[in-house]
Amino acid sequence: MAVNVLPKDGRDSTRPPALDFLQSLIGDDLKQVNRVILEHMSSRVALIPELASHIIAAGGKRLRPMLTLASAKLCGYSGLRHVPLAASVEFIHTATLLHDDVVDGSALRRGNSTANVVWGNQASVLVGDFLFSRAFQLMVEDGSVEVLRILANASAVIAEGEVHQLITVSDMATTEETYLEVIAAKTGALFAAACRIGAVVADRPAAEADALERFGANLGIAFQLTDDALDYAAPGNDRGKNVGDDFRDGKITLPVVLAYQRGNESERAFWQRTLERMEQAPGDLEEAKSLLERHGTIRATVNRARDYGAIAQEALQGFADGPVRQALSEIVEYAIERTL
Amino acid sequence: MAVNVLPKDGRDSTRPPALDFLQSLIGDDLKQVNRVILEHMSSRVALIPELASHIIAAGGKRLRPMLTLASAKLCGYSGLRHVPLAASVEFIHTATLLHDDVVDGSALRRGNSTANVVWGNQASVLVGDFLFSRAFQLMVEDGSVEVLRILANASAVIAEGEVHQLITVSDMATTEETYLEVIAAKTGALFAAACRIGAVVADRPAAEADALERFGANLGIAFQLTDDALDYAAPGNDRGKNVGDDFRDGKITLPVVLAYQRGNESERAFWQRTLERMEQAPGDLEEAKSLLERHGTIRATVNRARDYGAIAQEALQGFADGPVRQALSEIVEYAIERTL
Repeated sequence: MAVNVLPKDGRDSTRPPALDFLQSLIGDDLKQVNRVILEHMSSRVALIPELASHIIAAGGKRLRPMLTLASAKLCGYSGLRHVPLAASVEFIHTATLLHDDVVDGSALRRGNSTANVVWGNQASVLVGDFLFSRAFQLMVEDGSVEVLRILANASAVIAEGEVHQLITVSDMATTEETYLEVIAAKTGALFAAACRIGAVVADRPAAEADALERFGANLGIAFQLTDDALDYAAPGNDRGKNVGDDFRDGKITLPVVLAYQRGNESERAFWQRTLERMEQAPGDLEEAKSLLERHGTIRATVNRARDYGAIAQEALQGFADGPVRQALSEIVEYAIERTL
Repeated sequence: MAVNVLPKDGRDSTRPPALDFLQSLIGDDLKQVNRVILEHMSSRVALIPELASHIIAAGGKRLRPMLTLASAKLCGYSGLRHVPLAASVEFIHTATLLHDDVVDGSALRRGNSTANVVWGNQASVLVGDFLFSRAFQLMVEDGSVEVLRILANASAVIAEGEVHQLITVSDMATTEETYLEVIAAKTGALFAAACRIGAVVADRPAAEADALERFGANLGIAFQLTDDALDYAAPGNDRGKNVGDDFRDGKITLPVVLAYQRGNESERAFWQRTLERMEQAPGDLEEAKSLLERHGTIRATVNRARDYGAIAQEALQGFADGPVRQALSEIVEYAIERTL
């Protein structure tokens, strides 16, 4: 079955210009990743490639597989193993997105209807399971138990983080510490694994693998915190989301956690009504934004993202300077400064 | 966190007496499997062991892990690798059940409320993902890429079969061939993998692994077909289901597929109304049973199960006669003759 996941020039139209430099370094490998993705989502059950291509085509930046490719290149790797493993990372990510959208009841992702809206929750759950299995099949083809360990562990951490978030998502008593734990698991773990794999296929010493893992973990957290800030602050951006989406979904993110802690009694009552009990009225989003502004929690969240970004940058210092290190460093900048 | 999954004597009270002989041969190993299951469903996120223990404790016969243990024993294996791998098989099965119940909207499993009713669909999806990841972590600990290949392939086949079933489940035009394909994937694949692993850990030749895989695949199909027949025929039984559950859920199983093919126009209209459009009225289940009776499709389904059972029995012939082979042979008998 013929399914297109990318425009003919191989360039994803949703990829932001900030990733162009990295793209220029690993573009050929990324085309191969897209080819592997396309091949491995095929099935004689037509609904599987239909649904999978919908989310994979719409799915944006390919940031995680790009990190695997770039990390391998940074470690001087010249083989081909990083290509199917990068595809495996993207499959795990896609499976997670499919299940996330079901769990959140999301109707839009990057401006398109979500798969659960088009094909139903049932199909999204099951195709997610299929892509997750495909990810492990790709790893098995590679044959490295070390890689399998990294991604099996990351998958368990992600799922644990998702359950953790499910419990805390509408609990205003969520602390900053708990929130950071959740996003370290939900977002940081796969970024970390994606990067670590690069060092493993290149057969580099544990110290380099650890450094790349640290780079990925902190980049992922910085990325998510910036997303949390942008959700209240930025109108047009490349996130495919609208201002206030998190608020309307009742998601408690770091700007809100901090504003709740710093707020007086009536402000706390506001957050409880709007996000715990989900009783939202016109004007509430504006009121929420003004509370975040009053307590400076958007800025505080961005500053926290910068802290994680700085740790990510530091993790790169042990690697030889050159274009790949420069491109990875620019991704950290991009993650934080996107539209603020 | 203390969670019990079994009564203190280690015996699952829902295990039918027919499995007692096998239990007497592999009981010590099975206790170890239960210990590994208990250990590996632990998490600092308390909801995970709570929900997981609910379904694992309620989850019946431990038939799949028993097959791994027995297959290893049949191959003369005397090590310990089969124990965590049997737990891994059970985790994959449990993850599938959690997602199945969400997809089917089931409220009862073995007479207990399903996890999705108690904790919600969201938690069931995510804890299923967690248990699936845990299964792969257990395989990684074992370290055999061959075992990982078997179970990654089985998982992909299962998920593909689930999506296939989702499409065909309420389509009266489903053919017998398609239906058998679906249950070979949904049920046969994990039975087959569970058995094949026994030969792999014992380092037996491919011919023995193939024979055990064939045994498992055919046993699984026989088991499912018998279940389909029992659903319309047997009042009290060990399935934890009630007569007519499949009918009320609108599930098109082999007895119905055959009755539809053999039926006249008004009978076909009946099946379309009750199972495709799900417009069911009092007395419809009785009418359905009488149509199945008229066309002899319960008997035909049981006969088909016997055919698969015979292939399973034949697959055992190459192994040395003895108590383990005898016990596996009795499981085939049990699968088919349970309460008919």
